[in-house]
Amino acid sequence: MKSTAIVLLSGGQDSATCLALAQQEFDQLEAISFDYGQRHKIELKMAEQLAHQAGIPHHVIDATFIQTLSTNALTQTDVPIELQWDGLPNTFVPGRNALFLTIAASYAYQKGIRVIYTGVCETDFSGYPDCRAPFIDAITHSINLAMDSTFEIRTPLMHKTKSETVLMMKTLGKLDWYAHTLTCYEGQQPACGKCPACKLRLLGFQNAGIPDPLAYQ
Amino acid sequence: MKSTAIVLLSGGQDSATCLALAQQEFDQLEAISFDYGQRHKIELKMAEQLAHQAGIPHHVIDATFIQTLSTNALTQTDVPIELQWDGLPNTFVPGRNALFLTIAASYAYQKGIRVIYTGVCETDFSGYPDCRAPFIDAITHSINLAMDSTFEIRTPLMHKTKSETVLMMKTLGKLDWYAHTLTCYEGQQPACGKCPACKLRLLGFQNAGIPDPLAYQ
Repeated sequence: MKSTAIVLLSGGQDSATCLALAQQEFDQLEAISFDYGQRHKIELKMAEQLAHQAGIPHHVIDATFIQTLSTNALTQTDVPIELQWDGLPNTFVPGRNALFLTIAASYAYQKGIRVIYTGVCETDFSGYPDCRAPFIDAITHSINLAMDSTFEIRTPLMHKTKSETVLMMKTLGKLDWYAHTLTCYEGQQPACGKCPACKLRLLGFQNAGIPDPLAYQ
Repeated sequence: MKSTAIVLLSGGQDSATCLALAQQEFDQLEAISFDYGQRHKIELKMAEQLAHQAGIPHHVIDATFIQTLSTNALTQTDVPIELQWDGLPNTFVPGRNALFLTIAASYAYQKGIRVIYTGVCETDFSGYPDCRAPFIDAITHSINLAMDSTFEIRTPLMHKTKSETVLMMKTLGKLDWYAHTLTCYEGQQPACGKCPACKLRLLGFQNAGIPDPLAYQ
């Protein structure tokens, strides 16, 4: 039996890099994305294109219940339906990565797959607690006890800067994959180039001394 | 602000007992059940009735994606669609409690609720790893790191036998709630009284010296 791993694919720059790294290590991969009512559905189209580029199967899991959790909470606590304090749309759910990793492990378990890649990154500007290394250690332990198993969650980008990530992708010879990623906070294609997410992305490429293959307005 | 807790309500005997125990401790409760494509949808009706008895709101979360995970896995590995080695229907998902507790925590987080009750029980005949105390400790840690929070997962039945559970319910004066629970593996109402689940339940009442208020055929 060939060794297989799961790659969580958000359609962003980090998950694309993660996919390229995983492909160096594994004979076979499967990509998983989540439809959780995200603001920009185009993320799922980008993930599909990336999986196609890599020549691997792509599964979109219907996690739209997440949207219901959020809407319920907002409705019942009279929080206006708009951007929240942290600049995220109200579809954001605390512990989102905990949900995604647990769902991915449930899926993987039944297929005998025990390695899961995710592009979470501590140095990311978002500062989400569920992107940090201690959380990844904790959920690995929790999932393994839950399923009496030996899952390994790989986070090759955990301590990388954006420019380091770009340089890794260059070494892997997959810089062209970045044309199929979405970073723009406005969800625009071509990307706006002006929102904080676009600016941060462009800075990473600039620091790496590599042009971004993404189309900008 | 009154203190509030979440109770995971499966519609079974243990979660009904858990609800009664939680109501002793908290001013306000909310019940959460999961529609995950379970074999007997009547479980959700029972959960609804129990929440009504307790006079608390009941939320059913659409977790039917779980069924998809399972069907995918079965389809792709050519496992026949029938009972699996462990005697569970193929809708069973490894790590189900990990999913349920994480979803419940996401929901609770946004409402400022930090206590979650679940009726999991180590001494249960099922022997699922995600019903054991070390798993509960691990997922509590994992959820708290994920959300930078202070959740407490209470499992008052963890080390109780079925007869001890029944005696606790008698002390709480809520034995009549057991008429609104489903245990029968065949999902029958009145209960079959013959399947392993019914037999185990009846034995618990017998050992406690208390008649089961549930209707049997």
